[in-house]
Amino acid sequence: MADDWVAGADVGGTNVKFAVSDGAGRVLARGDVPTDPAAPLDTIQRLAAALRAVLPGDHKRLTAVGLACAGIVAPATGRLGRSPNLPGWQGSDLGGALRAAFGDIVTAVANDVNAALYGEYRHGAGRGCRDLVMIALGTGVGGGVLIDGKLVTGFADGAGEIGHMTLELEGPLCPCGNRGCLESYCGSVGLLARARQLAAAPEASAAWRDLIRSQGEALTTRACHELAAAGDPTALALFAAAGRRLGQAVASLINVLAPERVIIGGGVAQAGEFFLVPCRDMVASHVMNDEARDTPVVPAELGPYAAATGAAALAREAGAVP
Amino acid sequence: MADDWVAGADVGGTNVKFAVSDGAGRVLARGDVPTDPAAPLDTIQRLAAALRAVLPGDHKRLTAVGLACAGIVAPATGRLGRSPNLPGWQGSDLGGALRAAFGDIVTAVANDVNAALYGEYRHGAGRGCRDLVMIALGTGVGGGVLIDGKLVTGFADGAGEIGHMTLELEGPLCPCGNRGCLESYCGSVGLLARARQLAAAPEASAAWRDLIRSQGEALTTRACHELAAAGDPTALALFAAAGRRLGQAVASLINVLAPERVIIGGGVAQAGEFFLVPCRDMVASHVMNDEARDTPVVPAELGPYAAATGAAALAREAGAVP
Repeated sequence: MADDWVAGADVGGTNVKFAVSDGAGRVLARGDVPTDPAAPLDTIQRLAAALRAVLPGDHKRLTAVGLACAGIVAPATGRLGRSPNLPGWQGSDLGGALRAAFGDIVTAVANDVNAALYGEYRHGAGRGCRDLVMIALGTGVGGGVLIDGKLVTGFADGAGEIGHMTLELEGPLCPCGNRGCLESYCGSVGLLARARQLAAAPEASAAWRDLIRSQGEALTTRACHELAAAGDPTALALFAAAGRRLGQAVASLINVLAPERVIIGGGVAQAGEFFLVPCRDMVASHVMNDEARDTPVVPAELGPYAAATGAAALAREAGAVP
Repeated sequence: MADDWVAGADVGGTNVKFAVSDGAGRVLARGDVPTDPAAPLDTIQRLAAALRAVLPGDHKRLTAVGLACAGIVAPATGRLGRSPNLPGWQGSDLGGALRAAFGDIVTAVANDVNAALYGEYRHGAGRGCRDLVMIALGTGVGGGVLIDGKLVTGFADGAGEIGHMTLELEGPLCPCGNRGCLESYCGSVGLLARARQLAAAPEASAAWRDLIRSQGEALTTRACHELAAAGDPTALALFAAAGRRLGQAVASLINVLAPERVIIGGGVAQAGEFFLVPCRDMVASHVMNDEARDTPVVPAELGPYAAATGAAALAREAGAVP
């Protein structure tokens, strides 16, 4: 029913972000509660309490709740598999925890990047497209694939590890132990390592050397981005090189899947056009089919609540009569 | 109806291969007719006549006919787009040509690698799996993706260009003009170029130098394969290097899509285990999720009639009441 409310939540390493929307997709409330890294059930009880608090008297209008979580999520059973960011949650029955906390209600669980992709598909940068690829650039690099309006989860729910496409067999070391993964070029760990290397290069700008020296271990991709926005040539070179590697991966994905759009999300993606312009150049030169060379490569629109929004949409549709 | 017959045909640069099967998938007849590179309609009329000849008196039991063709095929409209191997057929209405030649009959058209993948899915190496990736190693390298039992055609029917995944930005030149594509390592053009280079290396075996010198431009991948089968170290090194590059691409595809199986077909794939063992080693070391590291990478089973068989299966299902 259009007036029923649906909640979505996104479990991260430190916080659970939530969003409640009505049948028209309008957001009624947003917020977050702390994640207990050792206690999934307690955390979800806390989420339920927070939702009751923000929707006083009306929380019984919630007809469905969706949960997104980092790691390998089995949508069919609601169970969380390997989850490097939430080791204390591994193996937990997220679907059962939702039902224990919310009672008799429709539930859906999904991987966080898949949920974010679904949110962008329903309410964001992917509206109107039934074939989408999303790449989320953060500390790591995650991904999701939507084909004919359905999330591709794959065998053992292991699809979407776009960050571990190998772009160069002898490339930089990736946190996964292999070399030359997309993540080793475009995840923040790899990007910041490259940022520090660049400071030692003879052509590095004075401002770049100052930044690296003054920030030390506190260096952030945002600080690099700010220098790029100010026109610093070393910062621009850093993002151009990373954007080209992103483009190599995006071009390969377009060659294989020919999605209608590719959505780039995650914190690192806030460097925006500094990444996206060289990425699109690579797509134009490395995509085989003429028709696909201008496949739009666009920034995500929904920001940090994308996965919560998508989890809500998945829960709403899980409860809809087909 | 189970007793109805279905024909499938696969248009190549020199021949059209055809196969007729009954409702149980049993092959009743196989054969081929020459391809007229300038006259698609005439070629399909010739195909219809050949089918009438091999099924005398009974050809009216044909209820459906499927056509596979190299190039970008639009299954919805039956039109052939870009087709480098059949430039004289570009833009032709294959569905209309089938109806003109066969009358009022169910038709289906598909890209040749997609049809081969569908054949392997229904009758070959992919039986029982609803999520498959196929890579066809020939002069070029083609590919297909099946998700939840459906072929992924993508925007403008451009999906499946697996041969142009970029494995190394500064890799060998590919016939497409870019560098480091899978095809530049594993297509027969690239493989034979590497074979000739190896003869100049100081560690090349005497037998290998003899082969390259004696064959000249007539060198085939089959001759290289025969030396590998005889244990020649240079031949084994050639296929091991190509197999590792194939494995790099396969591992990336498993990371992204997590198919149940990956099927390797095409003429070059007849080198079999010399390719597949190093390929599987790369998959084991470069796939992120534990569960997916032993995803079966298997040779195709249907041989040169795979695409004709798959086109028949697509036509049968196009005619089935859902």
